[in-house]
Amino acid sequence: MRNVAVIGYGVVGSGTVELFEKNRGDICKKIGRDCDIKYICDLRDFPGDKYEDRLVKDFNVILNDPEIEVVAEVVGGATFAYDYTKKLLSAGKSVVTSNKELVALHGAELLELAKAHNCNYLFEASVGGGIPIIRPLNKCLAGNKIEQISGILNGTTNFILTKMIREQLDFDTALKMAQELGYAEADPTADVEGHDACRKICILASLAFGKHVYPQYVHCSGISRITPDDVEYAENAGYVIKLIGTAKPAGEGHITAIVCPRLVPKSSLLSNVDDVYNAISVTGDGSGDVLFYGRGAGKLPTASAVVGDIIDCLKHKGRIIMIGWDDCNEKDYVVPYKTQETNMYIRVKAADAESLKPAVSELFGKVVYLERNGRPDDELAFITPKMPEQETDEHLAVLSQNAEIASKIRLM
Amino acid sequence: MRNVAVIGYGVVGSGTVELFEKNRGDICKKIGRDCDIKYICDLRDFPGDKYEDRLVKDFNVILNDPEIEVVAEVVGGATFAYDYTKKLLSAGKSVVTSNKELVALHGAELLELAKAHNCNYLFEASVGGGIPIIRPLNKCLAGNKIEQISGILNGTTNFILTKMIREQLDFDTALKMAQELGYAEADPTADVEGHDACRKICILASLAFGKHVYPQYVHCSGISRITPDDVEYAENAGYVIKLIGTAKPAGEGHITAIVCPRLVPKSSLLSNVDDVYNAISVTGDGSGDVLFYGRGAGKLPTASAVVGDIIDCLKHKGRIIMIGWDDCNEKDYVVPYKTQETNMYIRVKAADAESLKPAVSELFGKVVYLERNGRPDDELAFITPKMPEQETDEHLAVLSQNAEIASKIRLM
Repeated sequence: MRNVAVIGYGVVGSGTVELFEKNRGDICKKIGRDCDIKYICDLRDFPGDKYEDRLVKDFNVILNDPEIEVVAEVVGGATFAYDYTKKLLSAGKSVVTSNKELVALHGAELLELAKAHNCNYLFEASVGGGIPIIRPLNKCLAGNKIEQISGILNGTTNFILTKMIREQLDFDTALKMAQELGYAEADPTADVEGHDACRKICILASLAFGKHVYPQYVHCSGISRITPDDVEYAENAGYVIKLIGTAKPAGEGHITAIVCPRLVPKSSLLSNVDDVYNAISVTGDGSGDVLFYGRGAGKLPTASAVVGDIIDCLKHKGRIIMIGWDDCNEKDYVVPYKTQETNMYIRVKAADAESLKPAVSELFGKVVYLERNGRPDDELAFITPKMPEQETDEHLAVLSQNAEIASKIRLM
Repeated sequence: MRNVAVIGYGVVGSGTVELFEKNRGDICKKIGRDCDIKYICDLRDFPGDKYEDRLVKDFNVILNDPEIEVVAEVVGGATFAYDYTKKLLSAGKSVVTSNKELVALHGAELLELAKAHNCNYLFEASVGGGIPIIRPLNKCLAGNKIEQISGILNGTTNFILTKMIREQLDFDTALKMAQELGYAEADPTADVEGHDACRKICILASLAFGKHVYPQYVHCSGISRITPDDVEYAENAGYVIKLIGTAKPAGEGHITAIVCPRLVPKSSLLSNVDDVYNAISVTGDGSGDVLFYGRGAGKLPTASAVVGDIIDCLKHKGRIIMIGWDDCNEKDYVVPYKTQETNMYIRVKAADAESLKPAVSELFGKVVYLERNGRPDDELAFITPKMPEQETDEHLAVLSQNAEIASKIRLM
């Protein structure tokens, strides 16, 4: 039976077709009936492609074919993909996707739509590429109250930071290397400014805490202002700098969610997650800390998650698999990040930096000063005690009358 | 609706009841209907227990109550538990369990029985305690051909080895410490000789490769003969010693499966898994390496997995969730481990150990000699090139004419 379609024949789409066809014998056995890819939808031509006879340009061919049960939407973006997904789900066809943007923006609506039409909307590939995380969080850990999720959710920035840490490169050089290797796009904004990681923490937080978390309410800062000096200070104090997405309950039905670079202690497993790898740590009230690690992106790892979702949809035709989440219109569901307590790494510049120390002590209390090789006289770096970030900022405003605040990075 | 029963009110059973009752509000919401624990079955009395009114001694009360949909079997062992499970599944009641012994011995039969009666037999808690691994392997990675599974599957032995490595303790002292902390039982055989890890790799291999792997066909050696000297040699060469369960395809529809201590390179994430933690690494042809890490045992972590399975059964009443595996009567499905190629760490004792070097070279080719502080004259340690273990053993038989073979540990 040719009951599967793939929309978008780019990197993930071609990986999905490749992996599905390679393992189709086993897949049919797992499902207990025959299955195959009937259509691959893309506006481009692929002359000579192995699956050229399955290529169609008109989405409606898929929508109107009653044989199609499951569609892999690997187009990306939230325009066409949104329209296609709504139409398919409304027609009772399950949709599986790697499209984190769409899930982060419209997940609650699309899950509801799937439920109303007795089909599934699955998105294992939207977070962590080939790493199983959506189903474990939604199913295996369903008996827990989730106390925290933190993760390295973006491979591009993790590669850049790894190069900055291991080879003492500056950000621009490391970014260029990532681009040359195909790990970063020509316009790297979505990755390096943390927007990609932000979408992913939104999806995880929605799953874990049961209400949709919209990206616009989540504070997000990237890694482009991190310097080799920051990396060295951190290293000497037993930390590495990683871009971390975090979400946790904040009491009274609220949560905190934030994406930002953090000083991660070397004793943490997350500090050992290097290069393009991702890792997600989940703390449950029963499970304790569990960690999921693997390739967070790439053609076949992402395809692995997409194909796993296709199999689950085919196996469970006409049955809702996922535990969904509610939509959320409360603007203050995600509490302002500045109310949260954190230790902060601060680097300041001033003509005679040493002379700032009394003022630093008066403002922050007992700080820990950090060192680096050949630290210049006009520089001071320290870690503050834990305090609400609002308070840290007020102190920094005072300090900035006599010094330039060069860096401010949260601790994990 | 009081539709859940728990059989066995020991550590895991009481954890299951505790976690389920604590989070019951959320659980009902996830299932979309009411649920509660109606019976707790145990032969012992628990006077004054919070749930004393739910305690029953007669298993048949549960079996014959049509309200009961799901039963958590956390009795352990393969006698009563086997009988109970068969009766429950035959009556169309789903069973979830942490009982690795039962799954390893009778999993294929019990999965088949569940399928025949349109109910589920789930065992997320049987491997890795609170770590999600069964469902990820069965669902998320279903699109992959699995190329390898290796894991630290037993927390007790990992705790003992961690103490031996970090604090230079000998095996007996570290075992005693584990017993005092409640991590090892009075009779620690099942843990330290690798039988517990063996059951777990059998379950994972059955899932990954689709045929039941029976423990009696899997070679299994434990950690009781590892010495602080071995630990030190390994350390100096960049390795730590871990008890590792491994399974992989061996071509032509066969597999290899083995549990034994191994020298794990410090660059491997598994080398950083310490104390009672477990970690399982799975390599798929699409996903690449993914790793799952967390608490492999303990009251609440194991309960977390049991409760997750209860939720899935309640949510999917009357539908088969798992992709099962076939029974297997081929005696040679697991190929003899001695045919497999491996590098081997060898430690020998002889009056003048240095004089053995020419013989070692002649037998093994280019070996790497290892050092330790104050290595005595009568000792030599080296790592062999990769060769079939059969061949290593033949060379060792020759060498043993002039030396005592004190240690032989496989590399990972």
